[in-house]
Amino acid sequence: MNYPWPEPGTPLNEVATPMPVIDEARLAANIARVQAYCDQHGKAFRPHIKTHKIAAVAHQQVEAGAVGLNCQKVTEAEVFADAGFEDILITYNILGAAKLARLKALNARVAKLAVVADSKTTVAGLAATFDADKPLTVLIECDTGAKRCGVQTPEAAVALAENIAAAPGLRFGGIMTYPATGGAEQVEAFMSKTMALLAEKGIDCPVRSSGGSPDLFFAHLVPSATEHRAGTYVYNDRSMVRAGHCTNDDLAMHILATVVSRPAPDRAVLDSGSKALTSDLLGFSDYGSIAGYEGAKVVSLSEEHAVVDTSACTTPFPEIGAQVKVVPNHTCVVTNLFDRMVFHKDGLVTRVENVDARGTVW
Amino acid sequence: MNYPWPEPGTPLNEVATPMPVIDEARLAANIARVQAYCDQHGKAFRPHIKTHKIAAVAHQQVEAGAVGLNCQKVTEAEVFADAGFEDILITYNILGAAKLARLKALNARVAKLAVVADSKTTVAGLAATFDADKPLTVLIECDTGAKRCGVQTPEAAVALAENIAAAPGLRFGGIMTYPATGGAEQVEAFMSKTMALLAEKGIDCPVRSSGGSPDLFFAHLVPSATEHRAGTYVYNDRSMVRAGHCTNDDLAMHILATVVSRPAPDRAVLDSGSKALTSDLLGFSDYGSIAGYEGAKVVSLSEEHAVVDTSACTTPFPEIGAQVKVVPNHTCVVTNLFDRMVFHKDGLVTRVENVDARGTVW
Repeated sequence: MNYPWPEPGTPLNEVATPMPVIDEARLAANIARVQAYCDQHGKAFRPHIKTHKIAAVAHQQVEAGAVGLNCQKVTEAEVFADAGFEDILITYNILGAAKLARLKALNARVAKLAVVADSKTTVAGLAATFDADKPLTVLIECDTGAKRCGVQTPEAAVALAENIAAAPGLRFGGIMTYPATGGAEQVEAFMSKTMALLAEKGIDCPVRSSGGSPDLFFAHLVPSATEHRAGTYVYNDRSMVRAGHCTNDDLAMHILATVVSRPAPDRAVLDSGSKALTSDLLGFSDYGSIAGYEGAKVVSLSEEHAVVDTSACTTPFPEIGAQVKVVPNHTCVVTNLFDRMVFHKDGLVTRVENVDARGTVW
Repeated sequence: MNYPWPEPGTPLNEVATPMPVIDEARLAANIARVQAYCDQHGKAFRPHIKTHKIAAVAHQQVEAGAVGLNCQKVTEAEVFADAGFEDILITYNILGAAKLARLKALNARVAKLAVVADSKTTVAGLAATFDADKPLTVLIECDTGAKRCGVQTPEAAVALAENIAAAPGLRFGGIMTYPATGGAEQVEAFMSKTMALLAEKGIDCPVRSSGGSPDLFFAHLVPSATEHRAGTYVYNDRSMVRAGHCTNDDLAMHILATVVSRPAPDRAVLDSGSKALTSDLLGFSDYGSIAGYEGAKVVSLSEEHAVVDTSACTTPFPEIGAQVKVVPNHTCVVTNLFDRMVFHKDGLVTRVENVDARGTVW
């Protein structure tokens, strides 16, 4: 968009709203804290790029010690391959001729590419696409309580592993799970049982990948896991504070918004609507909190307006034209709405980054 | 994105998913039906571009008889000015130096540009920006029950109209409201009272603009209104069917999705997550319906997955790799997620349109 993006050094209050702004110091601290935790417990760490979708931030994560990246779509992985990343796990069932052709081309140019599968149909599509010249690594997605994708039992995982191992163009890479919060015991039980059954068949299971941000600091309670994947930790959000993962001082993303109307004494309207915050509730009854204005409640969103009930706000709420900082319920979905994003340190703009993988839906 | 977009004539089942697909026949019928209703009742019709954000669709609306366009942001209006539209109403309080400068430049090149204001602060910013050489038309936004923006009483509207009329660079254009559903009486009462008070002051009120899609066909119950604005009617969605505005046969937008996992007998997972559907509930308890699969319930979304509970589905649910068509709860927010969109007729692709104003947040 043809817009006067702020130069480095611009004060944040001169940035046109609504705009997500990323605190450099908190971003760096979040990256360092989680990497240190994984290092301490001997787990490889593989950040999920969905939260930032920015190559420069991914480079910060890998420079801190991350083993590689986690993507969700082929076109997302292409963006990060173009940016020079050589170890990418796509945690998705890739289906259909168009995507399989793209995946094959990607595998030819990325040193370490892997995908997941949870069905014979997905494995059959992969097996028919890849050959022994440049085989594709496939992990099995296991459902350890999240009730999304994944095989339901260790026995089903082993049956699928045999399918993969039998395909000349595929390599069995291990197992992967996206656990429900607090499910460390369930994840460990599934992983250890699967490994034992695979060992009986003489099938090696090199990678055991666990995932999720809210329960990231429970990753060491899954001894069988060799790596952990997480995305949200990099910026954090209101749901992560509620989960006990972090405090308000670890929130790297805020959405800068302007008060555009004060139609009634107990009502303020911000320019951060669902096009800026999304309508993700994640169990909350309102659409974000407002830094410094305890009790102010974002009660409804339309595309370009957020209606704030200020009746229980402990501080006089700002007047028309003033800026506020909204803490989003869910940071990852905000990122997908903006083409570019503003970074800052000590109240001054440091850089404006393209959200490189925004809109990569396939 | 570097992706093999479908050529005209491609069967829909070859389009990579997730992808919103627009039915040309239903689109044309929706445009014609609403224009005919407004023509019949002597109301000017001003479509809100938020639902499609596509210049080519806006041209279809104006060719059918729409008086001009309704935008929400300056940058949105710029996109449609670039596409040749000469009558644009921006229904937003424009605040801040950067946006006011852009608005002034826009006013210099658009034949009929107007904005709304609901406060002295907004009017003061506009008054300081515009001059008598090329004045800006300003309407007053009135709150007739939606409890979003807007002055609260006809008396407040008149006071603000006097502010506008006194500014050399501004022209008072009339009043505008975005009513709560079914609020025709409340809208009429507010409008007629305001007009009477303005007449006493000798202030002309040429435009009285009502708005909203769900209650569009009640627009004739507001005799004082000269025009109506609506967006969602152009594609329609699940919420519009529930509101009684249309039937399933008037749904022009579906989200084409693929079944990527069938982890359990009563669970299917689609590739249309919150990055394709958004998490807008609009009062529903689930995230869309699936055409032809009554009872299938989209119980949860993550960014790239939609989990479907198939236990109450009256038809056997499709297996992995099959395509389904999801009816979104809210069409406008879906549009903002995609850079391009596929149109079709009788199951064959007709065109692929850029979503020209996607991501115009300012």
